[in-house]
Amino acid sequence: MGFRDMKRRDLLSLIGTVAGSAVMYQAATSLGLAAETTYKGPIKLDGDAKGASILILGAGVAGLVAAIELRKAGYKVQVLEYREKAGGRSWSLRGGDTYTELGGFKQTVGFDPGLYINPGPWRIPYHHRAVLDYCHRYGVALEPFNQVNYNAYLHSAKAYGGKPQRFREIQADYHGHVAELLAKLTHQNALDGTVTKEDQEKLLESLRAWGGLDKNYAYAASLDSSNVRGYEKAPGGGMNGAPVPSTPASLSDVMQGGLWRFLGMGLRDEFQSTIFQPVGGMDQFPAALARQVKDLIRFNTKVTEIHQDDHGVTVTYTDTVKGGAPQTAKADWCLCTIPLSVLSQIKLNVGPKMANAISAVPYEAAAKVGLQFKRRFWEQDEAIYGGISFTDLPIAMIGYPNSGYGSPGKGVLLGTYVFGAYAMEYTAMPPEERIKRALAYGAQIHPQYAKEFDTGVAVGWHRVPWTLGCHASWTEETRAAHYQDLCQVDGRIALAGEHASYITGWQEGAVLSSLDAITRLHQRVVTA
Amino acid sequence: MGFRDMKRRDLLSLIGTVAGSAVMYQAATSLGLAAETTYKGPIKLDGDAKGASILILGAGVAGLVAAIELRKAGYKVQVLEYREKAGGRSWSLRGGDTYTELGGFKQTVGFDPGLYINPGPWRIPYHHRAVLDYCHRYGVALEPFNQVNYNAYLHSAKAYGGKPQRFREIQADYHGHVAELLAKLTHQNALDGTVTKEDQEKLLESLRAWGGLDKNYAYAASLDSSNVRGYEKAPGGGMNGAPVPSTPASLSDVMQGGLWRFLGMGLRDEFQSTIFQPVGGMDQFPAALARQVKDLIRFNTKVTEIHQDDHGVTVTYTDTVKGGAPQTAKADWCLCTIPLSVLSQIKLNVGPKMANAISAVPYEAAAKVGLQFKRRFWEQDEAIYGGISFTDLPIAMIGYPNSGYGSPGKGVLLGTYVFGAYAMEYTAMPPEERIKRALAYGAQIHPQYAKEFDTGVAVGWHRVPWTLGCHASWTEETRAAHYQDLCQVDGRIALAGEHASYITGWQEGAVLSSLDAITRLHQRVVTA
Repeated sequence: MGFRDMKRRDLLSLIGTVAGSAVMYQAATSLGLAAETTYKGPIKLDGDAKGASILILGAGVAGLVAAIELRKAGYKVQVLEYREKAGGRSWSLRGGDTYTELGGFKQTVGFDPGLYINPGPWRIPYHHRAVLDYCHRYGVALEPFNQVNYNAYLHSAKAYGGKPQRFREIQADYHGHVAELLAKLTHQNALDGTVTKEDQEKLLESLRAWGGLDKNYAYAASLDSSNVRGYEKAPGGGMNGAPVPSTPASLSDVMQGGLWRFLGMGLRDEFQSTIFQPVGGMDQFPAALARQVKDLIRFNTKVTEIHQDDHGVTVTYTDTVKGGAPQTAKADWCLCTIPLSVLSQIKLNVGPKMANAISAVPYEAAAKVGLQFKRRFWEQDEAIYGGISFTDLPIAMIGYPNSGYGSPGKGVLLGTYVFGAYAMEYTAMPPEERIKRALAYGAQIHPQYAKEFDTGVAVGWHRVPWTLGCHASWTEETRAAHYQDLCQVDGRIALAGEHASYITGWQEGAVLSSLDAITRLHQRVVTA
Repeated sequence: MGFRDMKRRDLLSLIGTVAGSAVMYQAATSLGLAAETTYKGPIKLDGDAKGASILILGAGVAGLVAAIELRKAGYKVQVLEYREKAGGRSWSLRGGDTYTELGGFKQTVGFDPGLYINPGPWRIPYHHRAVLDYCHRYGVALEPFNQVNYNAYLHSAKAYGGKPQRFREIQADYHGHVAELLAKLTHQNALDGTVTKEDQEKLLESLRAWGGLDKNYAYAASLDSSNVRGYEKAPGGGMNGAPVPSTPASLSDVMQGGLWRFLGMGLRDEFQSTIFQPVGGMDQFPAALARQVKDLIRFNTKVTEIHQDDHGVTVTYTDTVKGGAPQTAKADWCLCTIPLSVLSQIKLNVGPKMANAISAVPYEAAAKVGLQFKRRFWEQDEAIYGGISFTDLPIAMIGYPNSGYGSPGKGVLLGTYVFGAYAMEYTAMPPEERIKRALAYGAQIHPQYAKEFDTGVAVGWHRVPWTLGCHASWTEETRAAHYQDLCQVDGRIALAGEHASYITGWQEGAVLSSLDAITRLHQRVVTA
């Protein structure tokens, strides 16, 4: 029996009958994404572009999206890109790739076919609807990125005798003790006067279920707590299948251990499930965009000056491969997506407000190290499939591959992902030293490192020639003083990129900023 | 620069230098899976099987695993299977499949190519190491099953005006109010005497970070709380990128709303990340096992009697396709994986202990409904990618497909997954009525149902001919009285399946039980 033939009217009537009128509360028009994103679906640049031309500087995701949309809207578009390919920070390193950083260190990546790291962005959250829309539109296959893995480790050299704990153990112990404390105080009537008795009853019921408390509201060795933190001996099959509970850590050990600091990340907006990664590497996303506009991009161009006057914009650049005399490109308008860290070193005649904004924003330091191992021991030995282990060591985390689960070959870990001072330290070292550090510290969490290591690659973002840093680092004060000035169109020049957004460090910020900037530029062109 | 050439001794020395001696705390031998599973890797059935023969009844995962391992160990193996293919409850329904249930209702599945539901098991947790090992060994591709989706809905017709809430909102509001209450009491010195001041300080710091509290330890409309529950207007790009906080629900609304009941599931052992599903449907797992032993399986056989004597075991069966007179199969031993719900109706000469155990265990009722829709509106309109929405309506949940994310075609939802009384109600109805119910209730959560519905299929497990129920339902009392008797070898007969495990309703229970049973049988054979 299929059900294909049921008439729609029957169905609506049935819904009315069975479900009651409540079903109508949610008109189809009330669906939508207001709370998740300001992105309202594909941009519409209506009105006549009047044959206007535009120069886009940078073929990262901000520049690529602008090129696609502005050409559709009738503009003559040219894109100048410093690198030999599109993507900017949306970049993957695979076997055979070479990468030369500032200072001259050149790395040749030795990873096996199919293995890679993403030195820049590596995640696309479900609410980054603009990026997801472009991925869907241009056929970028996505797979889940596992942010929270209950069986991955939390680690501190200063707690639990330096022994890595499973995420599930720390979270269960934290929840359990919080629940036990609050249940105890509730039973002692400490909430009387502020919380009604009815609410206290629900609170107690909820704390017991959520916290893994036993029937006496205690967080103790029991099947209740083991069901959330894991067992001493897990339930099994056959004669000896009965489980044996594990013993939780004490409240004081949990609090002083400090590993609760790592519990909050997966709860945050940017890291909540569902999160994606492009199948095959983050560079697949800009590559798909670039295929749409490949005829518009001039690669290997280093911009040295951006000059505007009443008639248009002239950009001077050199060819970084062929060399030769500086060349110029001209257009009526310019969308500049060059990171502020680089742009602040380029001659540019904008007004003092935008100029001050460009200089005001420092760039976050970051470093990543990718390590290839001879086998996927984290899966085989430790049942860690994807996700991230966190540590207070100067590697900050170990990221496990979110693809190829259970495959018998080699695997690549993200062996270091650090920001701030740790990142500057890494960046200051030669790549080989960075890898040694990642291995030495990581071996405190995975002793298999010593035996299984194969080859690695390391990126310190302040040495990446095309960004000189990882992403813009606004403070509340700099935003108040400069953000609007950065986003305003200055004459014939507009800026875009993650730096011109409230989602710094994310591709979504770059795309939304770009769509906003070209919408406002287009408005000027149409109404001129 | 590659790093392949670094000598292992250098690396060990380096680890010693940089990481200190702490690195040695965790000897390689201390790795392993003791806490997660009783599975210690591939079974070793050493010793001479002496040409013994064995009859395996049932080609579900318990029977298939036994067939593979016992043949390897030197046994002459025959498998009798009721169905026309292997898998038992590990089963998928796809377009073109027909399914006839007890009572005669026949359904022809109308799903598009590539779309399916798994009427039985649909998840493989990371700690189900036996199942994962067999998947890896026989090339079953796995992809993540998204259990907890922060943007999926929690819903009660009796709370929040019947309006579905996002998981992230309910969880953040629950965490936030719990954190605020406990922080307030801590500030009022209510913990003095039971918790040290040092621990109280850490507790306060942790509650603020984890609960999304503002700097005054209040759970209120703020960027702190919006960062966990979501924004009124999310951070964006360009001129109008500034976020606007959302307003949390009150403590009383959270407690009385009762949606906190749905927060605990993803915290539990069986549902913690990482969880997998076989790519293309759960039936891919038994299909891979069956390919190893296809020459041993006789399909379409209905067992009517199992008889043992001093010389061996004789099983009487009929051919359900060809009909004809009852036939017999004989062997030295018998491993019976037939569900107890069916086995209790088959003539079987075991002792009173095993006989009592077989009759003592009722089977859980369950029902699932698969619904195909013309488009993946849950992704396109609502940014729900995989995972599960939960409701107190008699559909219990809506499961979203964990594959094909963002694809433009049709999609199949699990529109109902209920147990107990609700499941018996569903099972009692004709399939078409089950689908109508799933649609009518589901439309309270997704009004798009009315317009987008295409075709459906519905399974009530007490009408599934080969199991007559979903899985064994042990209580503490029946386990104490009968479990050991069920698992003991009775003469020449041993039982296996999820019912003979502490992980009922899961494939891991079936596999571990099977491995345990054949290990003990083999021990008898070797030492006989």
